[in-house]
Amino acid sequence: MLFHVEMTVNLPHDLPKDQADRLKATEKAQAQELQRSGKWRHLWRVAGQYANVSVFDVSGAGELHEILSGLPLFPFMQIEVKALCRHPSAIADDGA
Amino acid sequence: MLFHVEMTVNLPHDLPKDQADRLKATEKAQAQELQRSGKWRHLWRVAGQYANVSVFDVSGAGELHEILSGLPLFPFMQIEVKALCRHPSAIADDGA
Amino acid sequence: MLFHVEMTVNLPHDLPKDQADRLKATEKAQAQELQRSGKWRHLWRVAGQYANVSVFDVSGAGELHEILSGLPLFPFMQIEVKALCRHPSAIADDGA
Amino acid sequence: MLFHVEMTVNLPHDLPKDQADRLKATEKAQAQELQRSGKWRHLWRVAGQYANVSVFDVSGAGELHEILSGLPLFPFMQIEVKALCRHPSAIADDGA
Amino acid sequence: MLFHVEMTVNLPHDLPKDQADRLKATEKAQAQELQRSGKWRHLWRVAGQYANVSVFDVSGAGELHEILSGLPLFPFMQIEVKALCRHPSAIADDGA
Amino acid sequence: MLFHVEMTVNLPHDLPKDQADRLKATEKAQAQELQRSGKWRHLWRVAGQYANVSVFDVSGAGELHEILSGLPLFPFMQIEVKALCRHPSAIADDGA
Amino acid sequence: MLFHVEMTVNLPHDLPKDQADRLKATEKAQAQELQRSGKWRHLWRVAGQYANVSVFDVSGAGELHEILSGLPLFPFMQIEVKALCRHPSAIADDGA
Amino acid sequence: MLFHVEMTVNLPHDLPKDQADRLKATEKAQAQELQRSGKWRHLWRVAGQYANVSVFDVSGAGELHEILSGLPLFPFMQIEVKALCRHPSAIADDGA
Amino acid sequence: MLFHVEMTVNLPHDLPKDQADRLKATEKAQAQELQRSGKWRHLWRVAGQYANVSVFDVSGAGELHEILSGLPLFPFMQIEVKALCRHPSAIADDGA
Amino acid sequence: MLFHVEMTVNLPHDLPKDQADRLKATEKAQAQELQRSGKWRHLWRVAGQYANVSVFDVSGAGELHEILSGLPLFPFMQIEVKALCRHPSAIADDGA
Repeated sequence: MLFHVEMTVNLPHDLPKDQADRLKATEKAQAQELQRSGKWRHLWRVAGQYANVSVFDVSGAGELHEILSGLPLFPFMQIEVKALCRHPSAIADDGA
Repeated sequence: MLFHVEMTVNLPHDLPKDQADRLKATEKAQAQELQRSGKWRHLWRVAGQYANVSVFDVSGAGELHEILSGLPLFPFMQIEVKALCRHPSAIADDGA
Repeated sequence: MLFHVEMTVNLPHDLPKDQADRLKATEKAQAQELQRSGKWRHLWRVAGQYANVSVFDVSGAGELHEILSGLPLFPFMQIEVKALCRHPSAIADDGA
Repeated sequence: MLFHVEMTVNLPHDLPKDQADRLKATEKAQAQELQRSGKWRHLWRVAGQYANVSVFDVSGAGELHEILSGLPLFPFMQIEVKALCRHPSAIADDGA
Repeated sequence: MLFHVEMTVNLPHDLPKDQADRLKATEKAQAQELQRSGKWRHLWRVAGQYANVSVFDVSGAGELHEILSGLPLFPFMQIEVKALCRHPSAIADDGA
Repeated sequence: MLFHVEMTVNLPHDLPKDQADRLKATEKAQAQELQRSGKWRHLWRVAGQYANVSVFDVSGAGELHEILSGLPLFPFMQIEVKALCRHPSAIADDGA
Repeated sequence: MLFHVEMTVNLPHDLPKDQADRLKATEKAQAQELQRSGKWRHLWRVAGQYANVSVFDVSGAGELHEILSGLPLFPFMQIEVKALCRHPSAIADDGA
Repeated sequence: MLFHVEMTVNLPHDLPKDQADRLKATEKAQAQELQRSGKWRHLWRVAGQYANVSVFDVSGAGELHEILSGLPLFPFMQIEVKALCRHPSAIADDGA
Repeated sequence: MLFHVEMTVNLPHDLPKDQADRLKATEKAQAQELQRSGKWRHLWRVAGQYANVSVFDVSGAGELHEILSGLPLFPFMQIEVKALCRHPSAIADDGA
Repeated sequence: MLFHVEMTVNLPHDLPKDQADRLKATEKAQAQELQRSGKWRHLWRVAGQYANVSVFDVSGAGELHEILSGLPLFPFMQIEVKALCRHPSAIADDGA
């Protein structure tokens, strides 16, 4: 099942730099592992924002929440979720 | 170049039904032709909304505007556009 | 899978009364049939609003959209959807 | 009487971890006790958010406020309350 | 039980004047009857707005909804409801 | 003259507890003194919020501002003010 | 007593032109009469908007409402009211 | 003096087509005449919107308002105005 | 040229009191000097808010920005600016 | 390709002054270098705000993001991006 997710990151300016670096490195590793597994189906940067637009392909809302809340930057992100389904004008299922 | 586009349709309730049907049929034909050409790269329905989330792959903002403003439902849609680029954690370019 | 849905109805004042009455009667019949089937799991009125708060139990976003977009009042409703999952402090699964 | 309550938690990043852990553990214990008593009738997690959707069954606004303001995370939560009543299309009272 | 209610009226400009006058006259009669019964406890005009701030004293959310949805101007009003309870610094119960 | 005032309190989590306690105690004393004087005509708690809805009866905007800005929690409150007047359907002046 | 009032006009496009012209002419006459009386103390156009920023000097909220609700364009205006008082850094009372 | 102006056009769907065409043609002629005069310094289309971003170079707010309110589409536009001045990091005055 | 300016002050609670006092004293001195010069034409307090409504009479946007950004509380203020011009119904120019 | 960018700066009040000064100096140097290169095509200050309105002329969204995210003040800025294209009424291409 597909979910459209927008994540906007707000790191507090007084977060120690090494802690921030560790968070970002772990975040990147998890994001790449999830992409390789096929669960994080699309990941794009929004130009000019510390934000991404993503599409997840998961078994349901429970797995989606487990993934998102497990991201190291989760406490610093504003997240919007939309459930997606196949569009009647789509020529392919595109995962939906 | 990739653009993330959200379209929400608001058809006036006093639009004659046959006019609405013609608009929707032409909209669908154009959407499918644009998908086949590769320009309308993704098209999903947002569950519970008369709305879609789309990704366009076009030469630039001019071509994007030409496509969107040429859609029959354009006068009845609220549209939000975001320019996308490759995310540093993405394992593939995914069009960006 | 559970979805939390809020629907707010805005009927245009110039909608003919008999058309509005037919829409509401069909809406009520469909809502009750969906409750009996177990798909429309909860349905409450928001006090002071022509609005409801509902919980749907469906196979996924596709079925949810089919149900909502098939409601006679769909063209006149503003709808917000949230995907639900089990809360770690919940003592029962409550459908999630 | 039923109230629909949405709680979104924002823990400050500089809250000491052991203090946060104690708050969450006490919150969980109170939430479960309130569920067992029947007052916290439904509790779901909103997917992708540090937030829940709940339904409370209490004697009135006074008891609702006593419960919510007594939660350990109350100072860190944004809370929205809606009073619920029976929907004319509901096939059961569902607590309302 | 007390509810704080704000009502803002938006009459469509093409509503026939005699229909609007009838609606307003019936609205006024019902409002005054409800005040005499003690259920519509306070009713003030917001300066500069076609709006009021009110406090209702009713048995619960069900009775509140019955009253509000029965007002002739209900289809033309935007309504916000807040459940009230006694404030810990209040020197009298003031109905709560 | 009547003013409708909504106050929402946001105490910073790192405000020392004894300072917060002193502020609240003084706030309560002032609120009760103002109620006894008749200037703070109504004071209710909004259920589920660290907030109140109040009605002040003062000589004008100057006195209102003097009272509100003199409250110990004023620096931590978001305040909305509406000027009230008598409603044409009100059966009593209710202070307006 | 001073009130700061912002009025934004939205005339429906299907309002007959002669009716709109009569409304505007009467509005202008009333606005000028109120300025001459000293009650409509300031009246400025907001550049680029069919809107004004005004300051009224009236006996209280009741008189303000009587004036504003008596304007011919009142049904077509969105109005925001702020009660003003003397600023501690002001070198003159400026009506407050 | 420079003003940054964003205009978003909302033509009612029941505006007769020939009237809309006349309005647009006159709008275009005026816009081009104002560009030639140097007063309408920049004019860009926002991709995906029936909207433009513009910069005007006028003698002041009065002339700006005269120009904008004289546009044939003014009654159908939502307009936002920002006054611009020279940025301390700008390497040229760019009209400001 | 006239500008309508609304300033809302948010002083951080952990700003040292003597620093805050110095800022406010300097702010007051500058505000009074600017009023005496005629540039800060009106200055009112918004009742119930740490905020003011002001009208400035300056040579243009550049001078306005120089004045506002030079205020000691500028870093702690949210500021909204509107360019004003003469209203067609105004009986005097009132600076515009 | 042209992008319209609005940047609003929010420097935390507890950012050490020398660090803030260094950030601003580097920001200015980069902004001027980018203007000289032709990529930062327009840069204006918004009167009364710590904000600018800019137009960038870059190869695409990727280059835009690289420039913006490389600005020293990027972590402290709220940024809005709009893709621009040629307006049908424009008498010159103006970069679009």
